Amino acid sequence: MESGRASAGAMEAALNRLQKLALHLGSEAGFESSPLSAEPTAARLSEKHSQLRVEKLQAFLAGSYKVDKERIYAFFQNHPELQTPVEISKVEHRELAYKQMKALVQEGGLKPLTLLMTDPAKYYNVFEAIGTVDLSLSIKMGVQYSLWGGSVVNLGTQKHKDKYAVAIETLEAPGCFAMTELHHGSNVQGVQTTATYDIARQEFVINTPNEGATKWWIGNAACHGKFATVFARLKLPSAKSHIDEDMGVHAFIVPIRSLEDHKVLPGVEIRDCGYKVGLNGVDNGALRFRNVRIPRENLLNRFGDVAPDGTYSSPLPSASKRFAATLGELVGGRVGLAYGSVAVLKAASTIAIRYSSVRQQFGPPGEPEIAILDYQSQQLKLMPMLASSYAFYFAADYLVKRYAEMKMTHDEAIVADVHALSAGLKAHITAYTAKSLSVCREACGGHGYAAVNRFGALRNDHDIFLTFEGDNTVLLQQVAADLLKQYKEKFSGGALAVTWLYLRQQMATYTSQTNPVATHRGSAEHLRDPTFQLNAFRYRTATLLHTAALRLRKHSARLGSFQAWNRCLNHLLTLAESHIESVILAKFVESYKRCQDPEARSALKTLCDLYALERIWKNIGSFRNEDYVAPSKAKAIQRQVELLCYEVRGMSGQLVDAFGIPDSMLRAPIGLKTGQYAEYSSMIGW
Amino acid sequence: MESGRASAGAMEAALNRLQKLALHLGSEAGFESSPLSAEPTAARLSEKHSQLRVEKLQAFLAGSYKVDKERIYAFFQNHPELQTPVEISKVEHRELAYKQMKALVQEGGLKPLTLLMTDPAKYYNVFEAIGTVDLSLSIKMGVQYSLWGGSVVNLGTQKHKDKYAVAIETLEAPGCFAMTELHHGSNVQGVQTTATYDIARQEFVINTPNEGATKWWIGNAACHGKFATVFARLKLPSAKSHIDEDMGVHAFIVPIRSLEDHKVLPGVEIRDCGYKVGLNGVDNGALRFRNVRIPRENLLNRFGDVAPDGTYSSPLPSASKRFAATLGELVGGRVGLAYGSVAVLKAASTIAIRYSSVRQQFGPPGEPEIAILDYQSQQLKLMPMLASSYAFYFAADYLVKRYAEMKMTHDEAIVADVHALSAGLKAHITAYTAKSLSVCREACGGHGYAAVNRFGALRNDHDIFLTFEGDNTVLLQQVAADLLKQYKEKFSGGALAVTWLYLRQQMATYTSQTNPVATHRGSAEHLRDPTFQLNAFRYRTATLLHTAALRLRKHSARLGSFQAWNRCLNHLLTLAESHIESVILAKFVESYKRCQDPEARSALKTLCDLYALERIWKNIGSFRNEDYVAPSKAKAIQRQVELLCYEVRGMSGQLVDAFGIPDSMLRAPIGLKTGQYAEYSSMIGW
Repeated sequence: MESGRASAGAMEAALNRLQKLALHLGSEAGFESSPLSAEPTAARLSEKHSQLRVEKLQAFLAGSYKVDKERIYAFFQNHPELQTPVEISKVEHRELAYKQMKALVQEGGLKPLTLLMTDPAKYYNVFEAIGTVDLSLSIKMGVQYSLWGGSVVNLGTQKHKDKYAVAIETLEAPGCFAMTELHHGSNVQGVQTTATYDIARQEFVINTPNEGATKWWIGNAACHGKFATVFARLKLPSAKSHIDEDMGVHAFIVPIRSLEDHKVLPGVEIRDCGYKVGLNGVDNGALRFRNVRIPRENLLNRFGDVAPDGTYSSPLPSASKRFAATLGELVGGRVGLAYGSVAVLKAASTIAIRYSSVRQQFGPPGEPEIAILDYQSQQLKLMPMLASSYAFYFAADYLVKRYAEMKMTHDEAIVADVHALSAGLKAHITAYTAKSLSVCREACGGHGYAAVNRFGALRNDHDIFLTFEGDNTVLLQQVAADLLKQYKEKFSGGALAVTWLYLRQQMATYTSQTNPVATHRGSAEHLRDPTFQLNAFRYRTATLLHTAALRLRKHSARLGSFQAWNRCLNHLLTLAESHIESVILAKFVESYKRCQDPEARSALKTLCDLYALERIWKNIGSFRNEDYVAPSKAKAIQRQVELLCYEVRGMSGQLVDAFGIPDSMLRAPIGLKTGQYAEYSSMIGW
Repeated sequence: MESGRASAGAMEAALNRLQKLALHLGSEAGFESSPLSAEPTAARLSEKHSQLRVEKLQAFLAGSYKVDKERIYAFFQNHPELQTPVEISKVEHRELAYKQMKALVQEGGLKPLTLLMTDPAKYYNVFEAIGTVDLSLSIKMGVQYSLWGGSVVNLGTQKHKDKYAVAIETLEAPGCFAMTELHHGSNVQGVQTTATYDIARQEFVINTPNEGATKWWIGNAACHGKFATVFARLKLPSAKSHIDEDMGVHAFIVPIRSLEDHKVLPGVEIRDCGYKVGLNGVDNGALRFRNVRIPRENLLNRFGDVAPDGTYSSPLPSASKRFAATLGELVGGRVGLAYGSVAVLKAASTIAIRYSSVRQQFGPPGEPEIAILDYQSQQLKLMPMLASSYAFYFAADYLVKRYAEMKMTHDEAIVADVHALSAGLKAHITAYTAKSLSVCREACGGHGYAAVNRFGALRNDHDIFLTFEGDNTVLLQQVAADLLKQYKEKFSGGALAVTWLYLRQQMATYTSQTNPVATHRGSAEHLRDPTFQLNAFRYRTATLLHTAALRLRKHSARLGSFQAWNRCLNHLLTLAESHIESVILAKFVESYKRCQDPEARSALKTLCDLYALERIWKNIGSFRNEDYVAPSKAKAIQRQVELLCYEVRGMSGQLVDAFGIPDSMLRAPIGLKTGQYAEYSSMIGW
């Protein structure tokens, strides 16, 4: 290779060659029509978004919730003694998280349960800010308000609200959500704890029938909880038999510690689940019950009730409908995880991008070192991640709004939509964020390994987001099952939910998109057209859905439905991911089109192009296998991704600033430039 | 979908259909010729390797080192007070690691420095076992023996060995390796610490000229080190000028703490780098020097010396050759990381696979739950990982042998080969292991989040393997640069190093492989033929290499070589990964062919098929873009991967047992089945 930079003459020669190349290739070969724009210079691309104003973008993103988040940040900035130190033991972290929560509620005037019930969108925004302070704190509060509080207000009736809501809000009644058992995680319907009704005393008797039925990983149980919503099989005395009738899983309020002296109540056994990979500010425990008696009123009876004489009644016709309704009311936690995971991704991208903009390493011979964000490899690690942060934010924001709508209307179609959407988004976003946290740490090299820079704690704490509130692999199967149900209904003429509407259009039209002209088009104009992008995403989903349905039908005959499903499992998971990506892209396109500020809209459009094309490139095998894109088009897509990374890099400073996370919360990036040694020193506490 | 399992009649019908299908598709459509083997039953596949004996496999893997590893495990089993607890503070962990190291050396009779110098393969096997106990311990020992000790014996001369070797071995002289600076990580050649020769006093004066030149992340510095090998620019007084002459980076032994009272010596400033993401048993510190004087003899003078009068001499002709020779001697650390990373992967796969074999969740309606390892999704997560553990082991084992050969012969061709191979394998293996640790945690669900199950600590500790001893992105570029150099030499008729030999063959012949017959062949026989697999891997590398060379030539003219390289960076990184995968596959094929025991050989062949085909499937886009495989062949490859996962699952118990890691070291899997509650309880310390 020759050394040195291009002289003016060499540049001219190169332009001539490019001009010829452009003529040769026509306008459909991955280059824009003019040779200059075919190879944009650094200056041209960095100027392109120079008018982008952070405030405009931030206003479009955070809207009215900006002030709510800032209030949380300010609270902790004003209470340095409440900030979580970089190293903290399990015991201290648990006590600190409890103290932080009490301070927010008792001094800060925060009313999380009221927010949850009256303004879910604001609730999730406040929790996003709390999670940025410390994820242990937001999960601890999620246990108290969303899980324990949410189960009482959503599964109970007015009498439960009257009795518990205020005490939950003020933390007089700290509580747990005791669903998972040692042997029953994903398979919640298989829980074995029993609640047997005793007519004589009008009480339920709670029992743990075997070790596998021990309630496990129960947050708030090891230290602070005084109550627990316990999920147990309701057993009713049967007139016909001496064996009690199993009415399926119901939820009961069970006091576990004394309100007076906090001692564990008789018949209850509580164990500490011990040190965890992360979230050690949350006190997870194990619960066992031996003939623990609770009054009849402690059944959370919205979907099923037991009269004093043991008669069962329910507004819903079957055990499976009741179980579905019960789980449906708990979907808020999953919505919160999807939303919270985006917040983690935003924080991590902010840290990594700020650091990469100032960290320098290597450079052209005899010249100063360049910022590591100017390396193509670093751009390809971080710029699609930044685009995904925005993409996920708009999708999660839509989910939150749909959830709020669902809580207002109780419309059945919206309930079904929120269920599938929350499952898919939670699984997809948390998986992406988890991977990104590792990418960020590595991208920041040795300094990324300093605990003060937060990647370690964020990764450890966030890690379980992939598992709790529904294991991701299980949730994606629910999405696939839902798609197949919709597919079946389509063919029998039933109505399709809004989110899946495109599939109907798609299944009818996608064959027309594989004509030779379309598969070869590679101009920037075409590739950056949302119609092409959406069609490509949807084509993929429609193909996967169609072939999955055929394969399942084929295998079911021979293997039975369970094994047929298992036999097609990877296919089904790919289908679900593909569908969710389609939904995310659609929401991103809708969102930037709504943006009034032209500069912000143009920036968002660019990010959206990067999101779409990078995903297509990452999955290029599936598009090529169907010959949806020709090899030349695949190459043009790859080149567009590189150019878009370069373009986004030019405005990445503004894009992360628009997330509005104060540097003091991120603690990073530190120790970067001469003169910041002192700053690093003070961070480390020298 | 129909429910229920296949009746005998339905099975017959299915077989008939399959028979027709097989006839229709011929023998080239991804199925073996008989309809039964086309859809192997669980029984047939699990029987296939039922004769596999763990001892035979283990003997082939560990060979004579089995006993050395077992000695380490036994030492810690006999010293429970030396085992690292699940939760431990930074301060305690640092002291414990030091105590563990001293016990191994002083009570256990381990002689790491002697091993390193006389039997590197044994050294790496012993360190693998130590890393399984606690990665902090093996890294702490690596700092003492491989880095500090290694720099003295490899960069110094006999006088240094005489003076320091025994004291290093016995830990009388604990030391550091002070290369990295706050602003100079990957760019080692840019370090700014100075060592100015003072002729009058025959001393070097060590200085830190600015804050960015602070030695940073120096292991053993914060607490225990008494010496440091300091990398600094040698400055010699010039006869011609009043400015000292910069002779480039050299290594010097600098005492940092008193041998008597361990106090920090005058002019030396030591700071604690603080809490890290992981490896908190290693005490990393920052070092600054202000006019610290050391005797002339403290220059490690194997590659460059200064006479009393200030005259410089060297057996090597240039500063860059000296620098290369210096770094070349330090390649042992990188070899150790590649080897150690495989060990982490083996441990993590063992934990996840053992757990997944006993953990049950869901099942066919009305039937018992099934093991989660029987889900296709879980198999696709864990079985290729198991295959990769074996693949990487054989490659790393080859690397260790080449390294030992290099230390014996000092043959220049081997030096170059070991340099590129260690860079590529370290980068590739550590990246794969890091991702796998997250996959394992998630695959084990909530129980994977219990700290006692080790995924958290393994991931946190291993994480920096991606960065230290060479940032992975930088190392891959070295591999790419080496390939391009070889490519250039090929065209000018120069000799090719053994490892790259295949490229020469490949470049000449690969066009013949893209004929329509070859691109459509999809029989199991063909896909499981190592010739097809190796050709596919090499074809990909050769294509990437050829196109990279063309692109670099094109862009260099206009952009200069630095920016041209940056412009092609992602292409170059893909090239390097592709090459390394080819090397790994070649070593795997060679290794199983060497295995004498027919059952073990057959098992290894199956694993190798899975390794090869899963990698091709993961990169199917690049093969499809070149039309190296037709869509039907791509589909057949995917199906083979699923079948191979299923086949490997049947013998996965034996395959992980053959790694020979005692359960007591893994601490997991625990809390799985009824009756193991007690075991879990005792692990958690109830």
